[in-house]
Amino acid sequence: MSYDTTLVLQAQKCFQTSKGSHDWDHSLRVHKLSLKIGEEEKANMQVLSTAAYLHDIARKIQDDSQGKICHAEMGAVMAKTMLTRLNLNQTFINEVVHCIKTHRYRGQNIPESLEAKILFDADKLDSIGAVGIGRTFLYAGEIGAKLYNKEKNLAETKQYTPEATAYREFALKLKYIKDRMLTQAGKKLAQERHDFMMLFFERMNLEVDGN
Amino acid sequence: MSYDTTLVLQAQKCFQTSKGSHDWDHSLRVHKLSLKIGEEEKANMQVLSTAAYLHDIARKIQDDSQGKICHAEMGAVMAKTMLTRLNLNQTFINEVVHCIKTHRYRGQNIPESLEAKILFDADKLDSIGAVGIGRTFLYAGEIGAKLYNKEKNLAETKQYTPEATAYREFALKLKYIKDRMLTQAGKKLAQERHDFMMLFFERMNLEVDGN
Repeated sequence: MSYDTTLVLQAQKCFQTSKGSHDWDHSLRVHKLSLKIGEEEKANMQVLSTAAYLHDIARKIQDDSQGKICHAEMGAVMAKTMLTRLNLNQTFINEVVHCIKTHRYRGQNIPESLEAKILFDADKLDSIGAVGIGRTFLYAGEIGAKLYNKEKNLAETKQYTPEATAYREFALKLKYIKDRMLTQAGKKLAQERHDFMMLFFERMNLEVDGN
Repeated sequence: MSYDTTLVLQAQKCFQTSKGSHDWDHSLRVHKLSLKIGEEEKANMQVLSTAAYLHDIARKIQDDSQGKICHAEMGAVMAKTMLTRLNLNQTFINEVVHCIKTHRYRGQNIPESLEAKILFDADKLDSIGAVGIGRTFLYAGEIGAKLYNKEKNLAETKQYTPEATAYREFALKLKYIKDRMLTQAGKKLAQERHDFMMLFFERMNLEVDGN
């Protein structure tokens, strides 16, 4: 579609000063995963593709506000403005905005349409598997965390400290993601990525002890 | 031995402001690996243990000098001073200093004793396998690099830029480390860690494309 290039360029601009763990490449990976799941689940691909490109356009705003502004809610508002300027069909705009607003699945913002469920799954899939492992260590480096801390009582450790390691993220969050998937195709991909992530951290535990 | 605690505490102090990819925990892991290999290779364990604890004490000095000062050479000088103050046997001191000075295997500094070869192997082993993968993404985060860049011509990319990714480090350096091991026990451990690292990046390549 003719508006695609304009939209993609506008979306990409929102990531010019983003760090590697949450950059435009993440949006492109989520876009690929969304299309893959969308084909299997017979989704509206135009809604899905647009929502995937735009889902994190307010991520930097959330980071700069130290989490006070929700990037899903703010992103939905920004996307509505961008899409309205392109004179697109109102139903289409509402469907895209719903996906973006609910992609974190927080509070009252529950993914209800098939496309919203797929975007949620695709976004979460990029947090697990080999890519998820890489992103979580990269993020730990960005915030000045240590490599590892399996001996610590992780529940007592805090975000944005040297103890906010990749292993902490894995033990407290990432290993539960596979049980949160909303589509059948998402569940299948999540199980494979989960299994690899378990293998990785089991091996890392052994290596850290010199084995 | 009675001097151990003093030495370990002195060594640890050199890492108070180090980043996670090259911190005191790295020295402790290299220490564990050195002892493991040392037992198999029937090394002088006292020389090896002391050298492993002290091998990176000048690492922060190298980083702060932007690489102008070699941490192996500077560390050898610092270790000699520390050990001489403890009135240790001169032969013992010389053996430890040789290990530290040659653990990078650069220029004229070639590991010749069994203990120096083991320390070299242990240090390199901590750069590969699951620990190596974690460290290389963590380091990429510390210097502000991207998650991944497999499409780029890696030979044209530069260190300390967003393109200095973990994959670049793997493709240009880490995948050749197993062929540089100097002891039989080191070779065996390196092959296992190498195989896992290959598996990881093969999987990451697939996932980055949405598979």
